[in-house]
Amino acid sequence: MTACLLACGIEPEKTILFQQSLVPLHSELAWILGCLCSVPRLQRLPQWKEKKSSVKEPSVGLLTYPILQAADILLYKSTLVPVGEDQTQHIELTRDLARAFNRLHGTVFPECKMLSGEVPKIRSLRNPTSKMSKSEANSKSRIDLLDSPEVILEKCRKAVTDFTSEISYDPEGRPGVSNLIEIHMAMADLTEDEIVEESFLLAEDTGMYKMRLAGIIAESLAPVRERVIAYRKDPDFLTDVLKEGAAKASLIAEETMEDVRRLVGFR
Amino acid sequence: MTACLLACGIEPEKTILFQQSLVPLHSELAWILGCLCSVPRLQRLPQWKEKKSSVKEPSVGLLTYPILQAADILLYKSTLVPVGEDQTQHIELTRDLARAFNRLHGTVFPECKMLSGEVPKIRSLRNPTSKMSKSEANSKSRIDLLDSPEVILEKCRKAVTDFTSEISYDPEGRPGVSNLIEIHMAMADLTEDEIVEESFLLAEDTGMYKMRLAGIIAESLAPVRERVIAYRKDPDFLTDVLKEGAAKASLIAEETMEDVRRLVGFR
Repeated sequence: MTACLLACGIEPEKTILFQQSLVPLHSELAWILGCLCSVPRLQRLPQWKEKKSSVKEPSVGLLTYPILQAADILLYKSTLVPVGEDQTQHIELTRDLARAFNRLHGTVFPECKMLSGEVPKIRSLRNPTSKMSKSEANSKSRIDLLDSPEVILEKCRKAVTDFTSEISYDPEGRPGVSNLIEIHMAMADLTEDEIVEESFLLAEDTGMYKMRLAGIIAESLAPVRERVIAYRKDPDFLTDVLKEGAAKASLIAEETMEDVRRLVGFR
Repeated sequence: MTACLLACGIEPEKTILFQQSLVPLHSELAWILGCLCSVPRLQRLPQWKEKKSSVKEPSVGLLTYPILQAADILLYKSTLVPVGEDQTQHIELTRDLARAFNRLHGTVFPECKMLSGEVPKIRSLRNPTSKMSKSEANSKSRIDLLDSPEVILEKCRKAVTDFTSEISYDPEGRPGVSNLIEIHMAMADLTEDEIVEESFLLAEDTGMYKMRLAGIIAESLAPVRERVIAYRKDPDFLTDVLKEGAAKASLIAEETMEDVRRLVGFR
């Protein structure tokens, strides 16, 4: 989560980390938003259509989950939401619910926007046409945030590329090496042209480039990895962070809900 | 509400009066119960089928309302629920959700039962084959809890009966006078035989009986009416009762939710 926020350029000292289940106001707002949302609207969402067929009797929780997501966002009057492209329609629903509430009861909620990184989609190292995924069976298809430099080197070395030896950026024609360049862009804050130029000056072939990139990735992830390993040795500290986070989040959520309750006539 | 509880034989000193919206834990439990309930199960409930057709795009709140009702009941581990016959299937849903939770996570909830009075259905004074209803246009069809003795006398006098002058209990053959006897039973804690016998000894015809019954109803409702009128003069007191009620209810609800959260893994 922290890494995700960092990757999105959000400053961690401004970030409140907490467990949603420690703030019951999420479900209170979700109930109210559910009264502003039609059942057919939820039934049209692609994730519902896709997932309901995989179970015999799909649950109410599965159907109404996008409303809880909307409450997660609106409770904190969030304006920027760091999510992947698959969440586009859920963010649209959130905006619609905010508009519906504001129109019916009075303006409380801002209209949020999706926040994508400069490299919105990193692709698999084994199959550079599909996305890099935590749930992919083959762990060699991805760099995990806690991978050691040795493992990162091994994964980069085995990353699928083509038979052209020089480094060039061409996502259509050369998806493998272009995916590596995009990972490089995300890690080093360079443009694709700068990366290609640098590689040309170093007279690298793809094999040499992969090894250099492995070093850059390992160096970028090192502080994250070191801190995660250190934090894991102190579970009490992590529990405290989540508790303090929940307390801070509750204060903001409670303020929003005071307005919501007053406007809908609960107070 | 108090009158309803009194009518059901519930002692008011044991009763906590509060506004549901002052206890956000209702929607938290509703969210969790919704994850144990299938969408088709809600879509089969008669009130959803009946009401969804009256609106263009039925809301999620309308669909999931029976789950909020279940949370209202289960949050207080209620065992007896004073409701009308139209709520039979909603109580059945509540029992099913309690069973599903207990089986999946561990026993927290008792299985509740419906609580009906000895006279579960009072019928209209103007049309003794349909139920007495607050939402019926003709106010002469019902006795309101706040009706004055004069109004009650007038409504009883005009109650539809038949052309037989003596008093006898025969719901099929003589629905009008039998409905009056049932109202009498509810007010005076007498059996139908005792009421018919008493009327015979007093040599009453239906006209005389209606006037005596009006007195009995007025006398039964007098303490309720007097207290409501007195309470209405003191809205601060009523607000305090609801606030204190919400505080008491919250303590019980919080205790239940502590178990629920621990068992589902939220803590």
